Amino acid sequence: MYNYKLILQYDGSRYKGWQRLGGGENTVQGRIENVLSEMAGSKIEINGGGRTDAGVHALAQVANFKLTEKMPAFEIKKYLYQYLPQDISVKDVSPVPESFHARLKVKGKTYLYKIWNEPETNPFMRKYSMHVEKALNVSKMQKAAEHFIGKHDFTAYSNAKSKSKSMEREIYAITIEKDNGFILIRVSGNGFLYNMVRKIVGTLIEVGLGETEARSIPGILHSKERSHAGLLADACGLYLEKIEF
Amino acid sequence: MYNYKLILQYDGSRYKGWQRLGGGENTVQGRIENVLSEMAGSKIEINGGGRTDAGVHALAQVANFKLTEKMPAFEIKKYLYQYLPQDISVKDVSPVPESFHARLKVKGKTYLYKIWNEPETNPFMRKYSMHVEKALNVSKMQKAAEHFIGKHDFTAYSNAKSKSKSMEREIYAITIEKDNGFILIRVSGNGFLYNMVRKIVGTLIEVGLGETEARSIPGILHSKERSHAGLLADACGLYLEKIEF
Repeated sequence: MYNYKLILQYDGSRYKGWQRLGGGENTVQGRIENVLSEMAGSKIEINGGGRTDAGVHALAQVANFKLTEKMPAFEIKKYLYQYLPQDISVKDVSPVPESFHARLKVKGKTYLYKIWNEPETNPFMRKYSMHVEKALNVSKMQKAAEHFIGKHDFTAYSNAKSKSKSMEREIYAITIEKDNGFILIRVSGNGFLYNMVRKIVGTLIEVGLGETEARSIPGILHSKERSHAGLLADACGLYLEKIEF
Repeated sequence: MYNYKLILQYDGSRYKGWQRLGGGENTVQGRIENVLSEMAGSKIEINGGGRTDAGVHALAQVANFKLTEKMPAFEIKKYLYQYLPQDISVKDVSPVPESFHARLKVKGKTYLYKIWNEPETNPFMRKYSMHVEKALNVSKMQKAAEHFIGKHDFTAYSNAKSKSKSMEREIYAITIEKDNGFILIRVSGNGFLYNMVRKIVGTLIEVGLGETEARSIPGILHSKERSHAGLLADACGLYLEKIEF
């Protein structure tokens, strides 16, 4: 078998997320698998490094798939370019050792969250950022972010369905910066539960607005009670930015 | 009468341009006039500084309108914010002297054109830039641009319908710069004929691709023959950036 790695960028606006579901839902994985299966003449499955939710974007999603017959990477790239819709862009295709697996070999991921923090709307970014009209207090948000760093049970800050698997994840870093009307939040960690980044960002927004106190975070983490955590930030502001192996 | 100036930003993707047409077409002017007329309780007409085509965007369109009764500018802004769709953003509303007219008082305008000049598509900018896959030669484009500077009859580089009015316009400056995968072209002048910026940019792209020679431009301008000019650049890459009074 010949193993290939894909680096992908996509606008998640019109997709029901990355992961292929049962039926004919419009997912990014499903779209790419359909094109690759057409190309190979047999059913191809791809593994994605990050399972982005419905409406979430990717700047550098990583995926891999295997072919029974060798094919030049540039030809695969050309085929995908020709048959994928314009909101999914293949940045790179490269042959990799057979042992490479884009999901199982992940060591860390970084998500970027874009907040448009001006009183007026930004017509060009309305599908690519969350609009918060009131000015956010970034230094308060930075202090609050420190409570999430490290290993924690993130049950309260997720909507993960499974109760059997471990809910512990490690957050390596959270950075927050202002950039021409935007506030950019980067969260990196070893893995993320369902909706976890959006709930962390939602809480940081509430802290930045003065609606929640940063000091309440450790208690909420400890309680493992979802009802105690606050806002779920909009999907459209979230981007899978980097995956490390 | 009380005269007000609006500064507007809009995503032109789903509009048939700025200018209100006869029937119920979806135009930016029409949308704003409908909301202002609701607000005033009588028919309000607005004058726009630049008549952007279908699909063309604006970063700082300027318009004015008159009310028979005085109203605080912040209340007008709030009303527009509440009732305009999210792809039209009112950046500012301010009272101006009764003599101010956003179309008749224009001294100059600057249009920005965004080209995404990478082999791969940019999924986030597919509606906000023209994609040119092959690398453009910017220094060739800069030399070609010089031929457009100054006063010329721009009949050949437009699709203007009227033959009676003067086809002479003055281009003050054209700048071209690279910016993280984009090529940004700014064209400023005292006024522009229908499709004029897009035809100038189209020719610059052809020069940048080596498909046209810069030295052919003066002859084409002189010929006043549209069939001699080349490519019409996509509407989605064009932005009305600045209007000077």
